[in-house]
Amino acid sequence: MWNDDPKIDEGRENGGLDVEILSVGTELLLGGTANIDAMLLSRRLSELGLNVRYHTVVGDNPVRLKRAVELARLRSDILITTGGLGPTCDDLTKQTVAAAFNKKLVLQQSVVDSIRERFRQMGREMPENNLQQAMLPENCTILPNECGTAPGCAFESGGVHVIMLPGPPRECTAMFDGSAVKYLSLLQQGVILSSTVRIFGITESRLDEILREDMDSMENPTMAPYIKENDCELRVTAKAETRERAEEMIGPVIEKLRLQLGDLIYGVDVSSLEQVALDGLRERGLTLGTAESCTGGLIAKRMTDLPGSSDVFRGGVVSYCNEIKESVLNVPEDVLAEYGAVSLQTAREMAEGARRVLHCDLAVSATGVAGPGPDREGNEAGLVYIGLAAEEGCFVRRVSLGDTGRERVRNLAASHAFDMVRRWLNGLPLEDPSR
Amino acid sequence: MWNDDPKIDEGRENGGLDVEILSVGTELLLGGTANIDAMLLSRRLSELGLNVRYHTVVGDNPVRLKRAVELARLRSDILITTGGLGPTCDDLTKQTVAAAFNKKLVLQQSVVDSIRERFRQMGREMPENNLQQAMLPENCTILPNECGTAPGCAFESGGVHVIMLPGPPRECTAMFDGSAVKYLSLLQQGVILSSTVRIFGITESRLDEILREDMDSMENPTMAPYIKENDCELRVTAKAETRERAEEMIGPVIEKLRLQLGDLIYGVDVSSLEQVALDGLRERGLTLGTAESCTGGLIAKRMTDLPGSSDVFRGGVVSYCNEIKESVLNVPEDVLAEYGAVSLQTAREMAEGARRVLHCDLAVSATGVAGPGPDREGNEAGLVYIGLAAEEGCFVRRVSLGDTGRERVRNLAASHAFDMVRRWLNGLPLEDPSR
Repeated sequence: MWNDDPKIDEGRENGGLDVEILSVGTELLLGGTANIDAMLLSRRLSELGLNVRYHTVVGDNPVRLKRAVELARLRSDILITTGGLGPTCDDLTKQTVAAAFNKKLVLQQSVVDSIRERFRQMGREMPENNLQQAMLPENCTILPNECGTAPGCAFESGGVHVIMLPGPPRECTAMFDGSAVKYLSLLQQGVILSSTVRIFGITESRLDEILREDMDSMENPTMAPYIKENDCELRVTAKAETRERAEEMIGPVIEKLRLQLGDLIYGVDVSSLEQVALDGLRERGLTLGTAESCTGGLIAKRMTDLPGSSDVFRGGVVSYCNEIKESVLNVPEDVLAEYGAVSLQTAREMAEGARRVLHCDLAVSATGVAGPGPDREGNEAGLVYIGLAAEEGCFVRRVSLGDTGRERVRNLAASHAFDMVRRWLNGLPLEDPSR
Repeated sequence: MWNDDPKIDEGRENGGLDVEILSVGTELLLGGTANIDAMLLSRRLSELGLNVRYHTVVGDNPVRLKRAVELARLRSDILITTGGLGPTCDDLTKQTVAAAFNKKLVLQQSVVDSIRERFRQMGREMPENNLQQAMLPENCTILPNECGTAPGCAFESGGVHVIMLPGPPRECTAMFDGSAVKYLSLLQQGVILSSTVRIFGITESRLDEILREDMDSMENPTMAPYIKENDCELRVTAKAETRERAEEMIGPVIEKLRLQLGDLIYGVDVSSLEQVALDGLRERGLTLGTAESCTGGLIAKRMTDLPGSSDVFRGGVVSYCNEIKESVLNVPEDVLAEYGAVSLQTAREMAEGARRVLHCDLAVSATGVAGPGPDREGNEAGLVYIGLAAEEGCFVRRVSLGDTGRERVRNLAASHAFDMVRRWLNGLPLEDPSR
C-alpha cells in the first residue's frame, strides 16, 4: 500500500539510495544496551554517500519483525539488518527476512566448515546449535565473520538490496568494513564528503546564534551541529560528482568557520581533544603525566585509550585521599590544611608534584567535586580546578560545571585538561574560553 | 489503513500498553551519537510494566517525520518522542506531532517566565530563539525541564497518549523521572517485574547450552540473556496482578540459576562488578588501591565512577613506563629486566608495591598488551596479568583476551580485577573462571 501512496517519494530529495537500518533484539527494547550498531553503520554509510533515512528496532517477535521488514522493503532501497544471526534461541531474523523476500534458507557447507575450523583453533568442540548459523538465503553473497562464528549475507530481491549483519558491534562493523562495503560500492555513483570541525568551550545556544543564518541559507554544502556536552562538532557535507570537487566545495566553508570561531576550533577531522593533545606532544617530543583527584583516572584513561599514547604518556597518580596527595605527590600538608583539597593552590601543587615525581615535561592535575551534592567542606558539585605545570610555571583553570552528574562533570573536567594542553602547545591563552 | 488490517493486533500478546519511542535527529542517522535516550527510556518503561515495541529514528525531515508519527499513532498506545525541542533551527518535532494529532501550538506564558528566570540565574540574556520553546500544544500537560530550558509536554488524542521529551539524555531522563512517569502511572494496571542476574566469566554459547531448554519452556516468568563481552546478564521477567506475586514467581527461577551457575553469578539486581567490589569492601571496612599499566587508569576510573567510592578507594598509580614502575611502585629493576614489564612477576611486584605505597588493605594491578598488535617484546595483544595483593600474599591471574581491540581488552582486564576482588572478599578461588 505504501508504494501506491504518492507521498512515498516526497522525502527523496537528492536522488541517492535510501537506507534503513533494522535492528532486531528484545534487549534493545528493554534498554539493556544502546543501538551501537546503528550508530557505527550510519557513520560509514554516510561517508559512502548513502542516505540513512530510518533506524528501526523491533524485538524478537516474528509478527512485528515481519511487518517492519515489509515496511522497509517499500520505503528503502537498501535494508541492513543487525542482530539475530547468533546461536541463541531467540534468533529469527534470517527466517523472517528470507520469507519476506521469498527466499529459501539453505545449508551452506563452506560456512559449516569455517565455523568448525574456528572452534578447532580455539581447541573446543563446535556446539550443535552453531550449525543453524550456516543456514543462509539461497543465491546470496556470504559475508564472512572475522571476529565471530555467525556469517552475514547480502542479496537483491525486487530491486531492494538486503544486507544481514550480526549484532555484536565488533562483529557487525568488522563484517561491514571487510565485505559489505564492497557490495554497496557497486550500487551507486557520485560521492558525499563530510568534514567535521571540532570545537570546545561554547554552548549550543551561542553556537546556534553565531551560525544559524549560515546554516539556514546553505544547501550544498550543508552544515549541521552535533553537540555533546561542551564538545561541539560541525559537520560540513558536500555532494558532488567527484571527491576532488566535493573537497573544493568544503574548503571555503571551513575557512569562514575559522574566522568566526577562532581558537575555539581545536581541529578539523580529528577524533578528539586528547588525540590533538597527544599528536601535538609527540610532534614536539614532549612527555605528559597526570595527577587526578575528582577525575579518578579518567584523564589517564582517555589518553591511554589512544594507540601509541606510550610515546608521550609516562603515567599518573590518582590521589583520591589527602594522604596520597602528600605522600606520593608531595603536596605540602599546610597547603591542604589552609586551602583544602579542592583549591587552586592544591591543583597547582598536584600538577607540580606530578611533574617532578613522574619526570615529565608537562603535567596536568584535576581536583574538584564530581557530585552528586557538595563535598564535606561545602564546595559545590561541579567546581573543579585544573592545573597545568610546565618548566616555566603552572597555570590553574577554575570551572563551575554545576551539579550535573558525576559522568558529565568528570568528562568535562578531563576535556578542560586536554584543552589546556593543546592551548599551551599552540601558545594560546589558557583561561576557560567559555567564560 | 494499518488500523483496518487484522494483523495489527497479532503482536499484542499480553494486553499491556504498547509504547513506541520515536527519536528525531539527523545526527542520529549520520551516526554522530548513539540513541542513548531510547536505551534509558526503555529501561524505565519496562520497569513500569509497559511494552516497548518499537524504536524509530528519523531525521529532521518533515515528510518522513510525519509519516513516522502517523504510523506510530496506528500501532502504539503511547508515543514518546525525543529530540527536536531545543533552540536550534532544525527542530520541528513539535509542529509535526501537533499537526498529526490535530493540535494547535500556543504560547505558554508560564514557560516563557521560567526560561527567562533560568537565564537570569545564569547571569545571561535569554536569546530570542529560546522563545519558540514556549510554544506547546493546546491543552497539554507541561513537563518542566530541570536540567535545561526546553520544556516537554504530554497529551492524549484519539486514544493515543503522546509524550514529548528533549533530546539531550540528561534532560530527557530527568524529565521522564521528574514528571512523565507520573503521567504514565495513571494509564495502566498490573505490574511487570524484572530481576537481573549478573554473571562474569562465561561465553554466550556456553551459557546458551546450559540454559536453552529452560528458556524455551518458560512463558511467565521469562528469561532473556544480554551479553556484553564476558559480562552476561540474565533478565528474569514476571507479569502479575501485584508486585508481591511477581516477586514470588521470580524467586525460584533465580534459585535454580544459582544451582546451575554457582559462583559465576556475581550478583542479582546489582549494577556492575565494580559496585559489588565497592560494596563488599565498604562492608568489611577495607581500602583499595590500584597499579595500572595497560589499563591506563581505567580500573581507578571505573571505581571512581561510583558515588561514595572515596569511602574505600585511596588512589592509584598509572605506571605507563618502566621508570615509574621502579620509582613510584618500587618494582625491582632486575624483575623488569629478567621477566619484562608484561609478566606474572611484574604484576605481583606492582600490586605489592601499590599496597605499600598507597597504604591500602587490598591492591590490584594490571600489566599486559592492549594492542593492536604485539608489544616490542613480542607479547601477543590481549595477554594481561592481573594481580591482587592482600596482607596474606599476592595472587596473579593470567588472561588471553586476543587482539580484539584496545577498548575490549582494557575493559575485560579491568573486569577481571574487580572479579578477583569480589572473589577474594567471598573466599572463592581467584583463578580465571572462564578457563
